[in-house]
Amino acid sequence: MLLNVGTSIRSATRFSPFIITHSSPSSPSSFCFSFSPKQTVSFTLQSSQMASFTTLSQSPPKLLFRQLFEKESSTYTYLLADCSHPDKPALLIDPVDRTVDRDLNLVKELGLKLIYAMNTHVHADHVTGTGLIKGKVPGVKSVISKASGSKADVFVEAGDKISFGDLFLEGGSSQQLYKSVHSQIFTLPKETLLYPAHDYKGFSVTTVGEEMLYNPRLTKDEETFKNIMENLNLAYPKMIDVAVPANMVCGLQDLEPKAD
Amino acid sequence: MLLNVGTSIRSATRFSPFIITHSSPSSPSSFCFSFSPKQTVSFTLQSSQMASFTTLSQSPPKLLFRQLFEKESSTYTYLLADCSHPDKPALLIDPVDRTVDRDLNLVKELGLKLIYAMNTHVHADHVTGTGLIKGKVPGVKSVISKASGSKADVFVEAGDKISFGDLFLEGGSSQQLYKSVHSQIFTLPKETLLYPAHDYKGFSVTTVGEEMLYNPRLTKDEETFKNIMENLNLAYPKMIDVAVPANMVCGLQDLEPKAD
Repeated sequence: MLLNVGTSIRSATRFSPFIITHSSPSSPSSFCFSFSPKQTVSFTLQSSQMASFTTLSQSPPKLLFRQLFEKESSTYTYLLADCSHPDKPALLIDPVDRTVDRDLNLVKELGLKLIYAMNTHVHADHVTGTGLIKGKVPGVKSVISKASGSKADVFVEAGDKISFGDLFLEGGSSQQLYKSVHSQIFTLPKETLLYPAHDYKGFSVTTVGEEMLYNPRLTKDEETFKNIMENLNLAYPKMIDVAVPANMVCGLQDLEPKAD
Repeated sequence: MLLNVGTSIRSATRFSPFIITHSSPSSPSSFCFSFSPKQTVSFTLQSSQMASFTTLSQSPPKLLFRQLFEKESSTYTYLLADCSHPDKPALLIDPVDRTVDRDLNLVKELGLKLIYAMNTHVHADHVTGTGLIKGKVPGVKSVISKASGSKADVFVEAGDKISFGDLFLEGGSSQQLYKSVHSQIFTLPKETLLYPAHDYKGFSVTTVGEEMLYNPRLTKDEETFKNIMENLNLAYPKMIDVAVPANMVCGLQDLEPKAD
């Protein structure tokens, strides 16, 4: 059982950032990976009981996986939990400030214990819900990449693990985007499902096979890809002046002591 | 392999209309059902090869299932196909006019043959994409309930079947909403996934167990439920004056010959 959270390349690609789950029942393990530019971390979900999956000698971790959408910024928030663990420990990935109550209500309804609120990167398009969550649910730890330079309770680098129950996320490197996608995502079975962190057209999922065929950037050779990425000339993100300062303190801007 | 499309009760319920898939690997068959008020039809997806599923003597139909979102009306469009059939016959449920190109491009990319464009009811909140689809993909048949009084190529009543490959949808009755939900949905395993036809809060899926516990209407007794439904006093739908006349001819309003 594996899945992955990467994050945005903010592009014309149908899918840029990903959570990956494996859809082939014949090969129960999957794979994971980072998928994004600077100051980003992505995660791989794995089970510490992986070796026992084939023997059925003990019950495998039971992943709860929920995709939630925030319309204004077209952000997908993901709720993950290990439901076979007595505590049902859970984490939220990329929560948005305006949908925090929805997310926390769902956590409560499902009987989960939220332990982490993570950001895949410093978002420019929305204010993270991490700060609000920490105020409403004592004990929740915020997580972000060390490379982001942001404030948080836990900083991760490539290879670090964030555990919840018998599952864990593993930090990925964001440096070698093109090579990583080709060596670590495009080598997965073609029917492997890929879940986006943002989508602006109403897609909720894609597959490795489709991205290999139709992704407008990743189907190019490495040199062309680099040229595209260096010349995106993206519009100034609408919320960047509000979002980035807030997100650099993981949404705790209103709770920080003011300087005189 | 079964799933269901019902449609909207336009309510404060988190989920009103459904597609149901079964998430329990231990019991491979699921169940299906109608979930909506007047002039609505809902569908059950089944396989005509169901009996052979347990023997592996032949390959089972392979369902492709895609959830697509239209932001303005918060409508979910669903693309279903039988990918084990040589033609990969497909159908679209509740397509929206403004996202027809997206949907048809996905159909093309996945190599599917679109044969039906269906409406679960006469929508008041968006113009159906059915008419546009028929114009762009010759041979596609529009489907709606006979009770709707709308124009379409195929009219269905409870028990009718719409086949695509070795899968078929079966028309459901919309009359006995409360009883049907309790006898046909709430008797499913609690982890059964339910997919909405609309959602206004960013949820993409729920489960039977959650709706049994938290659905604000369906957790009431039948008498209370009837009172609630008769006194909704819903706001006049924003697009009703445009949408309903167009949807009564299944989106073919611009293609109809004008009366003098």
